[in-house]
Amino acid sequence: MPEIRKDPVTDRWVIIATERAKRPSEFKVQHEERGPGPCVFCEGEESKTPPEVLAYRQPGTAKDSPGWRVRAFPNKFPALQPGAASEWLSQGLYTAMAGKGAHEVIVETPEHDKSLEDLREAQVADVLKAWRERYLDLSSDPDHRYVLIFKNAGSAAGASLEHSHCQVIATPLVPVRVREEIEGAAAHFAKTGKCVYCQMLEHEAREGIRQVAESEHFYAFSPYASCFPFETWVVPKRHDPDFGTINDDEIKDMAHILTRTLRALAEILSRPPYNLVLHTSPCNADRCPAYHWHLEIMPRLTKIAGFEWGTGYYINPTPPEMAASSLREEIEKERIH
Amino acid sequence: MPEIRKDPVTDRWVIIATERAKRPSEFKVQHEERGPGPCVFCEGEESKTPPEVLAYRQPGTAKDSPGWRVRAFPNKFPALQPGAASEWLSQGLYTAMAGKGAHEVIVETPEHDKSLEDLREAQVADVLKAWRERYLDLSSDPDHRYVLIFKNAGSAAGASLEHSHCQVIATPLVPVRVREEIEGAAAHFAKTGKCVYCQMLEHEAREGIRQVAESEHFYAFSPYASCFPFETWVVPKRHDPDFGTINDDEIKDMAHILTRTLRALAEILSRPPYNLVLHTSPCNADRCPAYHWHLEIMPRLTKIAGFEWGTGYYINPTPPEMAASSLREEIEKERIH
Repeated sequence: MPEIRKDPVTDRWVIIATERAKRPSEFKVQHEERGPGPCVFCEGEESKTPPEVLAYRQPGTAKDSPGWRVRAFPNKFPALQPGAASEWLSQGLYTAMAGKGAHEVIVETPEHDKSLEDLREAQVADVLKAWRERYLDLSSDPDHRYVLIFKNAGSAAGASLEHSHCQVIATPLVPVRVREEIEGAAAHFAKTGKCVYCQMLEHEAREGIRQVAESEHFYAFSPYASCFPFETWVVPKRHDPDFGTINDDEIKDMAHILTRTLRALAEILSRPPYNLVLHTSPCNADRCPAYHWHLEIMPRLTKIAGFEWGTGYYINPTPPEMAASSLREEIEKERIH
Repeated sequence: MPEIRKDPVTDRWVIIATERAKRPSEFKVQHEERGPGPCVFCEGEESKTPPEVLAYRQPGTAKDSPGWRVRAFPNKFPALQPGAASEWLSQGLYTAMAGKGAHEVIVETPEHDKSLEDLREAQVADVLKAWRERYLDLSSDPDHRYVLIFKNAGSAAGASLEHSHCQVIATPLVPVRVREEIEGAAAHFAKTGKCVYCQMLEHEAREGIRQVAESEHFYAFSPYASCFPFETWVVPKRHDPDFGTINDDEIKDMAHILTRTLRALAEILSRPPYNLVLHTSPCNADRCPAYHWHLEIMPRLTKIAGFEWGTGYYINPTPPEMAASSLREEIEKERIH
């Protein structure tokens, strides 16, 4: 089982993934793996993955066989995995716990060569429904304190397989970055009686200069303190801490605004590598009513380097106002065609 | 002047580098720049950089002319720059300040094709003396609260120019990552009466399994909660919060252990891209006596991706005990030859 180790100085932890320990020689290949023939995520290769935990498939097709539109299964090399409940074990100065949790893969399309932004909106809506279903299932486990959904697109963004997919990781702790956000949101609410994200939406709608797109239930914009060039957030207008409450209407609308935004990014930045991270409240006892779930899209155009490492801060060479203006223009162009 | 913007939810800030604003089309080239002929950091090209603020040079050679071994000057495209003292300015929900500080480059060798690990130890000692000199100068400015020294080696680690160099950035705030470390060290001291880094050195010397190398004044090891495969720290045996107090003897010894460590990493990982970050106490009124300065070397073999972004935590596929054992073996081999 993987081991979670706590840094002895700060509140940072590291999953030492002993299950897939890498010796020096194994770091030489840095590209996405694609051998000849179909990959393990392709339709027809279902026997090469662990058994599916979810699939939206044609009526009459069997589990772990072709006929699916979206399919989810446990990661073959999990960073965290189910097991007996565990506690921190002190080893003198150091502290560790067993890496208990869950790690799943959601394959977004049976077709190998399609990216998320190439899919029809109905297919993207299916992906979002799969997010909701796996989120609700994993967050109902009382041992899980957070469920993270994310996507690494392109090898420079950390994807190790080319076939379009996202990942779901359930953790036995509330991660530090999530904690910072919920504490910030709670402090803002305590001071002002308002949700800081709701206020951001109001501000951005009024000012307009960082606006990217608006739909019935969502707003896409370049955040004021964007860490990265062309960082874009998709935020629901309805205040809710918890992604799991999204309804079918909202999913359809989210698929629409997300597709428009990803296509605009792909167009103006020549299909950049990117990370997409769902930010939602911790689950169970840690739920934070002041939080406001949303999606962050981060194209990977700059490198995280010594400055970011040494400080935890970022240097962004593209003002978000400039990024938003390019994205708005592109979306407008598409709308007219 | 660049603008520092604070995230409205968390204590994270971003430098919006308006001086070198990048439009979408400017992100297409991702490689280190090297045109034909010498680069701007090469000997003989001194007129192409801002005037030098430091150079160790042959007697009789003039400022900003050939004859130097190590040379420092302000960054032509600074992330932060000198200016009038500034304060946070609130813009409704948002907060920003002028990006006041300093951003310098230290060129480590006049020779274009030499990496830091290729240099003789005496030359590496000159580089470390330049670190000390620029550190002492910049930290004496009462407007500077932190002086960060770091190196990005290889384009995958964020280097935009190939010629071996490091960077010095003086900031008008204590960065969040530094604050977390000094708060952690201070809390540990308050609880135990001991420095957590001194205790780590004792622990690692006793256990030996994460040890990489030892010299008269330093200890190199793979930290227990390494975020990255082959992450290696070089820590002085003498407790001191402040890198600026390093003496000439210690510099000579540090050049020795650093060279051995970098050469072992280069050998077993085929010259990996890496970041090297000096961790030291904030300066002036923020000095933290419980802190213990040290150097962190992070080879860039894995990608920072959605999981790291969403959580602030890391997945490390190489246990530090395995990394240390490979590095020890390599260093031992070199010593025998």
